[in-house]
Amino acid sequence: MPNGAQSVISGLVEAGVQVCFANPGTSELHLVTALDDAPRMRPVLCLFEGVATGAADGYGRMTGRPASTLLHLGPGLAGGLPNLHNARRAGTPVVNVVGDHALRHKRLDAPLESDITALARTVSAWTRRAYDAADLADDVADAVAAAAGPPGAVATLVVPADVAWADVEKHAGARRRAAVPHGFVSERALEEAAAVLRSGEPAALLLGGAATHGAGLRAAAQVAGATGARLLCETFPARLERGAGLPPVERLGYRTADAAGQLAGVRHLVLAGASVPVPFFAYPGQSGVVVPDGCEVRDLGGAGQDVGVALRELAAAVGGGTAAAVAREPGRPRVPGGDLTAETAAAVVGALLPQGAVVVDESNTSGLWLPDATAGAPPHDWLTLTGGALGQGLPLAVGAAVARPERPVVALVADGAAMYTLPALWTQAREGLDVTTVVFSNRAYAILGLEQAMMGASVGAAGRELFDLGRPELDFVALARGMGVPAGRATTVEGFASLLERGLAEPGPFLVECVVPPIA
Amino acid sequence: MPNGAQSVISGLVEAGVQVCFANPGTSELHLVTALDDAPRMRPVLCLFEGVATGAADGYGRMTGRPASTLLHLGPGLAGGLPNLHNARRAGTPVVNVVGDHALRHKRLDAPLESDITALARTVSAWTRRAYDAADLADDVADAVAAAAGPPGAVATLVVPADVAWADVEKHAGARRRAAVPHGFVSERALEEAAAVLRSGEPAALLLGGAATHGAGLRAAAQVAGATGARLLCETFPARLERGAGLPPVERLGYRTADAAGQLAGVRHLVLAGASVPVPFFAYPGQSGVVVPDGCEVRDLGGAGQDVGVALRELAAAVGGGTAAAVAREPGRPRVPGGDLTAETAAAVVGALLPQGAVVVDESNTSGLWLPDATAGAPPHDWLTLTGGALGQGLPLAVGAAVARPERPVVALVADGAAMYTLPALWTQAREGLDVTTVVFSNRAYAILGLEQAMMGASVGAAGRELFDLGRPELDFVALARGMGVPAGRATTVEGFASLLERGLAEPGPFLVECVVPPIA
Repeated sequence: MPNGAQSVISGLVEAGVQVCFANPGTSELHLVTALDDAPRMRPVLCLFEGVATGAADGYGRMTGRPASTLLHLGPGLAGGLPNLHNARRAGTPVVNVVGDHALRHKRLDAPLESDITALARTVSAWTRRAYDAADLADDVADAVAAAAGPPGAVATLVVPADVAWADVEKHAGARRRAAVPHGFVSERALEEAAAVLRSGEPAALLLGGAATHGAGLRAAAQVAGATGARLLCETFPARLERGAGLPPVERLGYRTADAAGQLAGVRHLVLAGASVPVPFFAYPGQSGVVVPDGCEVRDLGGAGQDVGVALRELAAAVGGGTAAAVAREPGRPRVPGGDLTAETAAAVVGALLPQGAVVVDESNTSGLWLPDATAGAPPHDWLTLTGGALGQGLPLAVGAAVARPERPVVALVADGAAMYTLPALWTQAREGLDVTTVVFSNRAYAILGLEQAMMGASVGAAGRELFDLGRPELDFVALARGMGVPAGRATTVEGFASLLERGLAEPGPFLVECVVPPIA
Repeated sequence: MPNGAQSVISGLVEAGVQVCFANPGTSELHLVTALDDAPRMRPVLCLFEGVATGAADGYGRMTGRPASTLLHLGPGLAGGLPNLHNARRAGTPVVNVVGDHALRHKRLDAPLESDITALARTVSAWTRRAYDAADLADDVADAVAAAAGPPGAVATLVVPADVAWADVEKHAGARRRAAVPHGFVSERALEEAAAVLRSGEPAALLLGGAATHGAGLRAAAQVAGATGARLLCETFPARLERGAGLPPVERLGYRTADAAGQLAGVRHLVLAGASVPVPFFAYPGQSGVVVPDGCEVRDLGGAGQDVGVALRELAAAVGGGTAAAVAREPGRPRVPGGDLTAETAAAVVGALLPQGAVVVDESNTSGLWLPDATAGAPPHDWLTLTGGALGQGLPLAVGAAVARPERPVVALVADGAAMYTLPALWTQAREGLDVTTVVFSNRAYAILGLEQAMMGASVGAAGRELFDLGRPELDFVALARGMGVPAGRATTVEGFASLLERGLAEPGPFLVECVVPPIA
């Protein structure tokens, strides 16, 4: 007779979940045991919960399907929350399976007891605690459906240990469910969008979610080609497909003034998978407005709608269904001369980025020149820090590489950001993932140095100590080797190019510490 | 004119908070700036929030006073939650200062927006969001009072950026407050406890919180001396003072059967700062009962009461006020022969543990022999994993060393546990903290291998992969050096003794990787 844990794992497999990023504990042991009966589920051990959740985010962004996590009670979920926050902002499908104490144990307020569902609800569109093993198959099916979307979302199922270990005599919830209905499209929204785009007034499409890659992006480019609308996307897209031959999409600037400048003169802004653009932070005395006065904003899709389908129908409606979309010309920078800086390092990345790369970008200030330098590189995906919670880059690369083993993964990560989730490197080594990590080592929280002026805060000597990562200097080559990942340090342009080439050429993980000054 | 941020920092200083463990971001820049005006506040930079919160826990355990943290919005608080969970279970005073978006920015649902207070409430006895800079001085005073207890607790103040940057024209809340009233003592509870302890029936005192060190512990020992009551303490005490010349206190066993055995025959269990003992986990078909049938449990103190004062009054009531308490004889093991194992490593620690050491114990299975091996060592404090959330050890050592720079800190940490909060080592190096860390490298989540039998889960080959930390092997010497901490690896008893001696002799941090097999 199967038990509840087996129902969970087999239910995940039946719903198409193929990977479990796990950091389990005692209360999850029956779930761990059930993995042995599920050869179609790949367990991937992570040595910190933030690695597991960030990996699930990366996997979901690259496949459109949820991976599961396996986490240990409230503290385990808590450790994974920052990267679940990023996944939530990315609209990534993720299914968390969080073990809990046996139900009869909860009243005892044992040391690990805490309010798991309160934690889960801060990041999850769907949260449920299981109470009966007979319902678990159905609980899991609901969780996967909630995660799948559209749009994708975080779903969290809390499984008490006694519900997991109980025998399942009969699946109470074994109702056959129809295939999850595909997101609908609002005809009215389509017609209105088509009308304003054909009006001749300045218009722009703002892409996000599923509109920044694949068929959605191609349809958006056709719409732009047929109507003259500009193609913009969110400042931090979950997955932007770009490079030579692909439609060029402008990312909205991070600074409010930059984003407002990009939208100046736009009379009609059509959101396709994106939210109304807002500043990342508020600053004293500064405008918090990005969308210009007199600009009408309308949403092509909305909750529950499939923005990819909507864009294809919009392309047909504006006569762009067969239009040749604008395509980015191929073009790479050369490996430059001069000192190794964020700017010259970006040129090196642009010169060497391989065809089909999955780029994970948590380079923050050191990444300022990367988008331009790689715009005409061979086609690739660009994954960004959607939610602003640091520590995303290394784990996201784990998930992307598990999802797409045939593609090179390039993680471009700031030194400060890398410190939050270092054990991701160990999982890269363990799983033999083809990830080349570049750590931009400027030995500072340089973003804070830049932000203080915008914030009107004149940080003095004591405060500036809190931006300093240089005392002592972190040695990322040693840190990588400690995790089983070969690594090298570059202090010259040639050295960086040589190490990056090596990392890209070798299978398995490699890390390059790229020593650069903070940008001025 | 001061601003809100200056009110926060000066308010903390005025309330006696001397250290701020910080991992700030843009929304905290005015708070960072205010540190420059507060030379009596020591900012300590941590490169991960879990380090900041664990350090605050260690500091609070060693001083009885709260340190503050400085964290970045919801994701920053989330990263710190596992160690705040441990602090909550330890009854440690901690004041979290969490920056948030400007109030007028919150409605925009910007990328970093999330439900901070929901997160805070899962670990905090006191949570408040500030809305007006004029009230901040009072908000901070309330936060510190709530944290101070008794018992100590986590208090979280959420400070929106615009409340921090606003000018404070007049302190609206500048009411002078009386000194925080000391916890009261229930006369009735004292009388009842004294009566049962003098009844001649088998009785035990179960110590926790402030009763396991200092005057509380000494009074408890006098009570035991005068009445014959046994002295027990919680399985995972926040800070147990022990060693030669100190009262020997038995820790309740981790396994339910062990703890139940220790309490067998006890007719009266008097709780002093402890909760009713319960099993850590529930197991299928096993009793969840630790306290024997027929044993009456009564609480000497309770919410808001000062257990140290209560114990001193109880000692006087039972005529033990002047009794000589039982004291542990001095005695150390010798450095043993044989292979390096968890057992022989414990003997080495026992042989070398210096006078006045602060021992942070997150050694888990490899620590099985440590309590016995160190029982007769020179007096020291023993800090344990109160909440079961892994990743406590390295950060706790940071806080303990900041709190007690004159004492050697010895962190005994399992390899799996060390991986959650490695950047604590960098802060140790940066601050020149005298911490000697021993990582017991058994290359396994060995606790799960032991728990599976108790759990009745027969984990197979696929599941057992999730207990394996040996592929690839972690190199903690490289990891430590990468963080700026000198380190060495021991594979023999002599080598371990030599490296531990070196670490204890040298000022500043040192790490010993102690390679041991998993316990059978």
